Amino acid sequence: MNDQVVCIAGVTVLGILEQAYFSLQVINARRKFSVSPPSTAGPPEFERIFRAQANCSEYFPIFVASLWISGLFFNQGATTLLGLLYLYGRYQYFCGYSESSLGRLKPLYFSAKVQWALIGLGAVGVLGTMSRLYLGLDFTQYISQVLL
Amino acid sequence: MNDQVVCIAGVTVLGILEQAYFSLQVINARRKFSVSPPSTAGPPEFERIFRAQANCSEYFPIFVASLWISGLFFNQGATTLLGLLYLYGRYQYFCGYSESSLGRLKPLYFSAKVQWALIGLGAVGVLGTMSRLYLGLDFTQYISQVLL
Amino acid sequence: MNDQVVCIAGVTVLGILEQAYFSLQVINARRKFSVSPPSTAGPPEFERIFRAQANCSEYFPIFVASLWISGLFFNQGATTLLGLLYLYGRYQYFCGYSESSLGRLKPLYFSAKVQWALIGLGAVGVLGTMSRLYLGLDFTQYISQVLL
Repeated sequence: MNDQVVCIAGVTVLGILEQAYFSLQVINARRKFSVSPPSTAGPPEFERIFRAQANCSEYFPIFVASLWISGLFFNQGATTLLGLLYLYGRYQYFCGYSESSLGRLKPLYFSAKVQWALIGLGAVGVLGTMSRLYLGLDFTQYISQVLL
Repeated sequence: MNDQVVCIAGVTVLGILEQAYFSLQVINARRKFSVSPPSTAGPPEFERIFRAQANCSEYFPIFVASLWISGLFFNQGATTLLGLLYLYGRYQYFCGYSESSLGRLKPLYFSAKVQWALIGLGAVGVLGTMSRLYLGLDFTQYISQVLL
Repeated sequence: MNDQVVCIAGVTVLGILEQAYFSLQVINARRKFSVSPPSTAGPPEFERIFRAQANCSEYFPIFVASLWISGLFFNQGATTLLGLLYLYGRYQYFCGYSESSLGRLKPLYFSAKVQWALIGLGAVGVLGTMSRLYLGLDFTQYISQVLL
């Protein structure tokens, strides 16, 4: 099984490293703006970095779950590409949000679109497997042959 | 392997869509009550919607992990049913909490019970597999034949 | 497949139970310090318990993802041991943070080190599988034979 999911696992490891990088940025910002735990309130510069990391953390489980479902039930190649685009979008979002509230919007819309594509491919893959198993109709194989 | 987990994967996709719906409700509430990011403080109506979504996001990884362990190690049918009940309970919780703090309690207790059932079935499944592998005693098969 | 991941699944169930325990502690603290939802602000004693649980929840998906990748792609035994150490470190962190902000630091550094070890083993396992699949070089088997 490992051989069929190694690229998705690689994207997941990259995603974990990205989250670790964001966490380190929050620790730095806590020092720079003297905001000691457990407080999470501070100057807007600190709150933007804190919220940027909190937002990325909140969506991380949704990203990982949709990545693996799309990779297992649709296609590993397309899923890997979308996963890398998502991580790139999240990096741009974190940098943009750190600078200004407006700066978060463009990369946020981009990563949201990529996230919806992953959810869509996962849903197509799951519905295809269900229709093959329970209705005897195999349309996934047809779709992935036409599209890819 | 996909064929044995397709229903759990389907429940996971539904759960992701539910989380996306909750996130969109927070974005709407930010607009309605004029609470611009990075701030998360506002009138109680806003804070209830914000906390409802934050609470559901916080428990989403625990839900997904227990869903897959119960589905893989106990039984896919029972797990799928419990998963759907949990998502229904979380929808009721979100709607109830949006209206009043008290309104969150009844669906919260319901989804907590379903969550404990998923954890319990997962634990039984894992202990059963361990006892078969390391002690040579196969009691899972016996339990799932009696119960289901 | 289940037989190769049963110990990681067991660690995951323990991790879920630990998170449930932390959540119950926050509910108790809400009652003790009279902090009603949706508010999350209160005396420092309450805020420390609230942030301790929030921090553990935030890192739970990263822990579970790295645990499974390390277990699937590197080695189940070493991964199980590290997983148990991480859960022990998080328990010490929660208890320490509940008492004082300083009390969180030592177990935080400990669990961070264990978390990095899990990420590192997962990365080694994934890179090893990729190099075997795409370059024809099998170094994982060699490493796990030498180290374990």
